[in-house]
Amino acid sequence: MTNAYDDLMAFQRETGALGQIAGRLGWDQETMMPRGAAPQRAEEMAAMEHVLHARRTDPRLGDWLAAINDKTLDQVGQANLRHIRKSYLRNTAIPAKLASELARKTSMAQGIWAEARSKDDFASFAPTLEEIVSLKREEAAALSKGNLYDALLDDYEPDATGDQIAAMFNAMEPRLIALRDKVLGKPEPKSVTGTFDEAKQMKLTRQLAKTFGYDMSRGRVDKAVHPFSSGSGMDVRITTRTSEIDPFNCFYSTIHEVGHACYEQNINDDYLFTPLGSGVSMGVHESQSRIYENQIGRGRAFTSWLFGEMKEAFGDFGIANEDEFYATVNKVHKGYIRTEADEIQYNLHVLLRFGLEKDLMEGKLDVADLEEAWNTRFEQAFGYKVDKASNGVLQDVHWSVGLFGYFPTYSLGNLYAGCLNVAMRGALPDLDTDLAKGDTTAATAWLQENVQQHGGLYKPTDLIAKATGAEPSEAPLMDYLEAKFGEIYDL
Amino acid sequence: MTNAYDDLMAFQRETGALGQIAGRLGWDQETMMPRGAAPQRAEEMAAMEHVLHARRTDPRLGDWLAAINDKTLDQVGQANLRHIRKSYLRNTAIPAKLASELARKTSMAQGIWAEARSKDDFASFAPTLEEIVSLKREEAAALSKGNLYDALLDDYEPDATGDQIAAMFNAMEPRLIALRDKVLGKPEPKSVTGTFDEAKQMKLTRQLAKTFGYDMSRGRVDKAVHPFSSGSGMDVRITTRTSEIDPFNCFYSTIHEVGHACYEQNINDDYLFTPLGSGVSMGVHESQSRIYENQIGRGRAFTSWLFGEMKEAFGDFGIANEDEFYATVNKVHKGYIRTEADEIQYNLHVLLRFGLEKDLMEGKLDVADLEEAWNTRFEQAFGYKVDKASNGVLQDVHWSVGLFGYFPTYSLGNLYAGCLNVAMRGALPDLDTDLAKGDTTAATAWLQENVQQHGGLYKPTDLIAKATGAEPSEAPLMDYLEAKFGEIYDL
Repeated sequence: MTNAYDDLMAFQRETGALGQIAGRLGWDQETMMPRGAAPQRAEEMAAMEHVLHARRTDPRLGDWLAAINDKTLDQVGQANLRHIRKSYLRNTAIPAKLASELARKTSMAQGIWAEARSKDDFASFAPTLEEIVSLKREEAAALSKGNLYDALLDDYEPDATGDQIAAMFNAMEPRLIALRDKVLGKPEPKSVTGTFDEAKQMKLTRQLAKTFGYDMSRGRVDKAVHPFSSGSGMDVRITTRTSEIDPFNCFYSTIHEVGHACYEQNINDDYLFTPLGSGVSMGVHESQSRIYENQIGRGRAFTSWLFGEMKEAFGDFGIANEDEFYATVNKVHKGYIRTEADEIQYNLHVLLRFGLEKDLMEGKLDVADLEEAWNTRFEQAFGYKVDKASNGVLQDVHWSVGLFGYFPTYSLGNLYAGCLNVAMRGALPDLDTDLAKGDTTAATAWLQENVQQHGGLYKPTDLIAKATGAEPSEAPLMDYLEAKFGEIYDL
Repeated sequence: MTNAYDDLMAFQRETGALGQIAGRLGWDQETMMPRGAAPQRAEEMAAMEHVLHARRTDPRLGDWLAAINDKTLDQVGQANLRHIRKSYLRNTAIPAKLASELARKTSMAQGIWAEARSKDDFASFAPTLEEIVSLKREEAAALSKGNLYDALLDDYEPDATGDQIAAMFNAMEPRLIALRDKVLGKPEPKSVTGTFDEAKQMKLTRQLAKTFGYDMSRGRVDKAVHPFSSGSGMDVRITTRTSEIDPFNCFYSTIHEVGHACYEQNINDDYLFTPLGSGVSMGVHESQSRIYENQIGRGRAFTSWLFGEMKEAFGDFGIANEDEFYATVNKVHKGYIRTEADEIQYNLHVLLRFGLEKDLMEGKLDVADLEEAWNTRFEQAFGYKVDKASNGVLQDVHWSVGLFGYFPTYSLGNLYAGCLNVAMRGALPDLDTDLAKGDTTAATAWLQENVQQHGGLYKPTDLIAKATGAEPSEAPLMDYLEAKFGEIYDL
């Protein structure tokens, strides 16, 4: 028994190490790779994926899994087995022909989507999307005998169901709409003025990363077109970007990615290269990036410290005092684009996409009717009409690359962050005194202790329940948003 | 038939792509990797090496090779088969137990060697080196029924023999010693004075790289402790280093690495990821780096242009005119260390090591007598005594990591560069007019056409013979050195 487990884990660790290498190549591609190397890199990545796929479907996995009696293992062993069994079943369930057809179709689809978006022409993308939806439904059916959407969701938020998520999202929606409506009826906070030296932004952004506990000896910060975090364990790198006129883009991207990166850096070292050695779900991952970025980073206490740092770095930038600064970094504004949305409306964007993709997968909505459905729901949620497809149904890349089940994890992350924030503040009543001095140590230590160190040991909702003492719900997030924006906007 | 060849080559290309990934990780480790990531990276590299080793000894290779009739293939196919057959035979010839014992011993030996070097105590390293020599002799015997040194040499300089090399080196030695003796009897050229801004060095070094035809859209230049070139095809990166008081360290390291890098960049694109897709031998590789660095880069014509560029970048640096500058960049000086040696004495360093390691492998010299043999030969070649082991037998890492057969390729590269230089100048009689304007186009195009594009298509000596119209010999290099230093030192 023990022998099969040891063999399995040795094999698994090697696969984990190879997976880290693939991730590092992705980082290189976005930061360092000479542009002329793209065709060669594509072949290198394909070779790496081929090796990884062969390992993930290696028949020896099946033999080892059959030979192991989980009950003889300790908690860590059982958790490893749970992950490995599930991955193996999923990876071997999808017929090779379907997998290659999906890879081929989604690879082609990205160009077609980008072209359609540039022309604001959903009709020219619809036939392609229809094929992708059909293939994803086929994939979902191969993966599970149950609900098709749940089968796909499981890749990003293991053990969650669309209906459970819908119940929480449905409870959020009217409160979000009411709050958005009230806030947008009030005068808009001031904006920053002037230009912000990009080298100084990078200096302050590195300081912010360290302030939030990011270990620079096991990571690095570079510039890239899109901010991201990459890697696990001892080598977790982040990227950020700078804009001369919008310093918050850089600073809050960095804090967000530092949340992701600290989660990966702080997982128990013993789990390195095993299924427990990275964040347990996209939702829990997003809870860490969001609580760093919003509940801590955009809170009244921390922003008072950041205001001082920015004045020191950049001189006067048109904001008179801490209260004004707090309102500026939390500004709520009209807009069509998810990635530019504020803390309230971001969730409205996600709820909209979740509802539509769930309906598509469950056969309740046809691709032919998708644009109209999008536009109708958008007006209901945001109070005004979509002006063009690139601001509407064509704005996100996700569906063109076959990502169905990914969107809800963004708001699930916010929701988990809301739950964790209440528990953390209960445990640390004087936290704001620290944060006002730019000291996040107590907050990040609490998150490390209660969430991050565990990696993939517990199921996502069990982890949140264990950390907070209650089942996850939307109520703490909504209470927090109503209180925060009620105060800022004097509602 | 064709089918087995296609299958073999598809497999081989994937192995090639994975090999490129391993190389890229090595680059990352020396340039970008956070220092705390070292233990994790070691495991990632081990996983990658495990995958590569398994592919290189995969029994399917044997089956495909048995099924293919080489005579049915074209020239490229036959060359591929020649490389693949040879690699497969070598990789499967070494017993797994011996391979792991060698890996274990050489991994431990590096620390023991470094410790011994820091204490100038060869005796504390000798027992370890003795074990390594014994294991390498065992490896050589497994690889070939012939000469043990030749069996190891074949890894770095395929199809060469120690005796052929010895014949050429033996003809070089008295001429090198006589030249060294005469030159060191003359007054030393001036040195540069002042300090050289490191950012300006990096700017000029990137310009130099482009001047020598390095394609920046398929490469990049970074700083690292040791200059190196890494990768093949569309992604060939180099590193350099800077010293505030010695700008030539940066510039000539860069030109040297650009020689290696251009060779890799200029290989026929069709050979990507195949055995023909990288430089054919260490000696031919070194011929490219050396001819860029020395015959072109340290020539009278090119240095006159470089002198102007440096004056423009740094102002006055204590050198009055082009002739003085030419002497400065070609200064010959006493010293114990190979890596700091000039164009003449570098070869004396290599000849010394080659003779010793050949004797060790052939059982003609015991490790117990190695230090004394080194010191005796050093005094014969250089004219003075070694003062301590760190300046003598302990100075190079090579033997501690099991590299036997590597040293001669350095001087073989110089020798090939000497042959190529004569042929190139015969074909391009006005070359110096171009070089004096900083224009290397004709020279690098000639090398691309006659050497670089072919990758691994021809055997090393055939390639040089084809490019120069004569069998490789030491005479052109020695004639060149005697003429060049005779002029500079007024002999």
